[in-house]
Amino acid sequence: MTIFQAIESIIEPQRFIYGDLLSNEYSHIWKMEEGLNALGLVKVKSTKELSELLKICYKHNQPVVIHGGKTNLVGSTESTKQELVISLEKMNAIEEIDIVSRTMTVQAGVVLEEIQNKAREQSLLFPLNFGAKGSAQIGGIISTNAGGLRVIKYGMTRQQILGLEVVLADGTIINSMKKIIKDNSGYDLKQLFIGAEGTLGVITKAVLKLTEAPTSRISAFVAIKQYQQVVDLLKFMDSHLGGKLSGFELIWQKSYETMTGPNYQKPPIPHGYPYYVLIESLGADPLNDATHFQDLLEQSLDLGLYEDGAIAQNEADLQWFWKIREDVHVLVSQGPIDQHFDISLPIPLIGQMVTKMYAAIMNLKGVIHCFPFGHVADGNIHFIIIKQNSDEALTLAINDMVYMPLQEIGGSVSAEHGIGTHKKQYLSFCRSAEEIALMKLLKKSMDPKGILNFGKII
Amino acid sequence: MTIFQAIESIIEPQRFIYGDLLSNEYSHIWKMEEGLNALGLVKVKSTKELSELLKICYKHNQPVVIHGGKTNLVGSTESTKQELVISLEKMNAIEEIDIVSRTMTVQAGVVLEEIQNKAREQSLLFPLNFGAKGSAQIGGIISTNAGGLRVIKYGMTRQQILGLEVVLADGTIINSMKKIIKDNSGYDLKQLFIGAEGTLGVITKAVLKLTEAPTSRISAFVAIKQYQQVVDLLKFMDSHLGGKLSGFELIWQKSYETMTGPNYQKPPIPHGYPYYVLIESLGADPLNDATHFQDLLEQSLDLGLYEDGAIAQNEADLQWFWKIREDVHVLVSQGPIDQHFDISLPIPLIGQMVTKMYAAIMNLKGVIHCFPFGHVADGNIHFIIIKQNSDEALTLAINDMVYMPLQEIGGSVSAEHGIGTHKKQYLSFCRSAEEIALMKLLKKSMDPKGILNFGKII
Repeated sequence: MTIFQAIESIIEPQRFIYGDLLSNEYSHIWKMEEGLNALGLVKVKSTKELSELLKICYKHNQPVVIHGGKTNLVGSTESTKQELVISLEKMNAIEEIDIVSRTMTVQAGVVLEEIQNKAREQSLLFPLNFGAKGSAQIGGIISTNAGGLRVIKYGMTRQQILGLEVVLADGTIINSMKKIIKDNSGYDLKQLFIGAEGTLGVITKAVLKLTEAPTSRISAFVAIKQYQQVVDLLKFMDSHLGGKLSGFELIWQKSYETMTGPNYQKPPIPHGYPYYVLIESLGADPLNDATHFQDLLEQSLDLGLYEDGAIAQNEADLQWFWKIREDVHVLVSQGPIDQHFDISLPIPLIGQMVTKMYAAIMNLKGVIHCFPFGHVADGNIHFIIIKQNSDEALTLAINDMVYMPLQEIGGSVSAEHGIGTHKKQYLSFCRSAEEIALMKLLKKSMDPKGILNFGKII
Repeated sequence: MTIFQAIESIIEPQRFIYGDLLSNEYSHIWKMEEGLNALGLVKVKSTKELSELLKICYKHNQPVVIHGGKTNLVGSTESTKQELVISLEKMNAIEEIDIVSRTMTVQAGVVLEEIQNKAREQSLLFPLNFGAKGSAQIGGIISTNAGGLRVIKYGMTRQQILGLEVVLADGTIINSMKKIIKDNSGYDLKQLFIGAEGTLGVITKAVLKLTEAPTSRISAFVAIKQYQQVVDLLKFMDSHLGGKLSGFELIWQKSYETMTGPNYQKPPIPHGYPYYVLIESLGADPLNDATHFQDLLEQSLDLGLYEDGAIAQNEADLQWFWKIREDVHVLVSQGPIDQHFDISLPIPLIGQMVTKMYAAIMNLKGVIHCFPFGHVADGNIHFIIIKQNSDEALTLAINDMVYMPLQEIGGSVSAEHGIGTHKKQYLSFCRSAEEIALMKLLKKSMDPKGILNFGKII
């Protein structure tokens, strides 16, 4: 029996797509018009079916690439004509919401926004939040260990996962779908699969941890002269907000002035300052939280921690402030070609490092703009660089300028997005030879034939 | 060269102990008088030295057991005459505290209380806290993924670790000592070693995440009639305290009445209720936090969520209230022999399950008392059972009554303490055959000769 026959023996025709029909499918949400480059595409409908399918692939040494919402930013969903793509999109049921245990049990194909809404209906919160929430599916989100805008208060995806169900390369189903918060009964296997970009197993289900929804949300923009003030203000707000600090987003002058330039959002505070910070507090005591936040903002002004500030006075202001930060498309649209970064570095070093990187990048021929911004409280900075062309030499020169300095200071080439194929050659800039050897050992042990997302990460 | 000669060639005589001198050493803090049962004991002083030592052991197929503060509760530090014990106690330096990144870099042998104090000096908090803090060393704490009293607000040990340095079985040093909060550059290897009880590698250093120290602490005891009120009160307080809820400790009637019996602490609220809950809030706004907490307690009384309550009015009250909960020695001292449990189960089921387990256990001949209490907000309940004798049949009968019901309801035989040797035979009660097979595969891959804490967990 050929592999096609074997697959057709377990999958209905309309869920096994190959040949010309692949032109109606795609590998990334930004590349819909290109069609899908693959041996075939299987849309599985259950864990058991996926297990059977992987047994067939394992037997036939058939490499597979796993698809969810196809919003991955580092090439982890790219496939070749030799690879079978397996999509989890049809496993899209929310199986349970338990308001006492505060958990939600979901299949891998559920879209983030649906999870957020389902939690909200019960006055609960699933705190993960990022731009692609309308498309990103939870299986891919977990495989990427996604971060986003509220990591400072709630942590990354890893912190939101209580249980996982995973299918290994050989079809073995690992069911660790407990709803309990604490479990020290042997190795915490789910940690292996979170952030592994589908290379160690395919996530099929998860038990998500929910929290009580906040009832107060306060945001303010402040303008700052020196990076040291950013650090001091972060410490001041974090120590006085007592766990309510949920956002502390730094936007450099050039980025802020572009985001609030003509035709875009109007600026809440005037242009002309080197740094702008958007602060957010989430609490459960609406009246006191607002006055307390206002007091803290006044105290920090008296302490000289910022120069000018504006508090969102109503829901419309909140939307306005956050739209400035979230609409990075404004930056991307400033020229023909863009290049993105997503680095981590120790908070005290961010000011000087970004100043240096910015100067070096702007000095390269072909670079039009450099826009730094990011989650400074997490030590995570994004750059969007706008270029005149997509010459590989320029791309690599920019990569070097951003990634090379990270080696010495213990940074990371990927805070949130992962490694995939795009950053693979830079992995050794932030992980030692021994670490990479151990990653390879794990991969080899758990997927000896190398059929799962082969060539991604390592 | 024999293994003794090889060890003597790299370790000074006073740090390599064997023969009669082992009678001055011990394997557990409760068994100091018994001496150490081992081939020998090496007190390493650096990561490099440990790496050299493990290379020797690996070459000679010499099994090793790792010691820290020797407070482990499940037999993970037990050794035989064939095993070499390696102690990290001399690697006890705090290498750095970084108040901007809010990290502390420590060697494995640093005692928890020292870490807590060092953080406090800088108005920072290392939130882990439990009874053995004066002896437990951070390497062992990380290897156990310890929990304790404030998991609801701050998470378990896993959530406090930013970086690790680990030596593998063959002596390879894995250095992942970054101070960054977010790092998605490949597999998060440190997760493998956290909670692995020293079976996959030896933790030598860690970068700990610190948080801003809270400036308000409020505690109250309440008395409750029905378990459903416990659940409702937890939800009410958690949703209104907005992340400040740091403790929600449930004590069953029998346990409370014993802890506050004659000769012990006086009871803050009268005896006679089925349940007592000790609630704690940690915040950063002392004035508002106190009035807000008081308001919430009044509202929840009006809602019928509890029957009687007492708020700690001052520091002395705080000490008094927490001493009642923390001094479990009172329970242990109620009879000749004690047996402990540390289980996890879904929060909605705790009331009925504990009632059933309690009745079944008390019905066994030889059982004097059964004392349930625990971190109900984490779904984690402890039992201390007092028996007339240490007959194995009785021990096993009690184990069955506590562990067997956990299978059906997705509980865990160990919420905090780990598996070690004591709970090994019950691991399959809460982990599937496929999970255990994957644990064994990881062990086999990373320690092919099985020299690290062999026979522990799996």
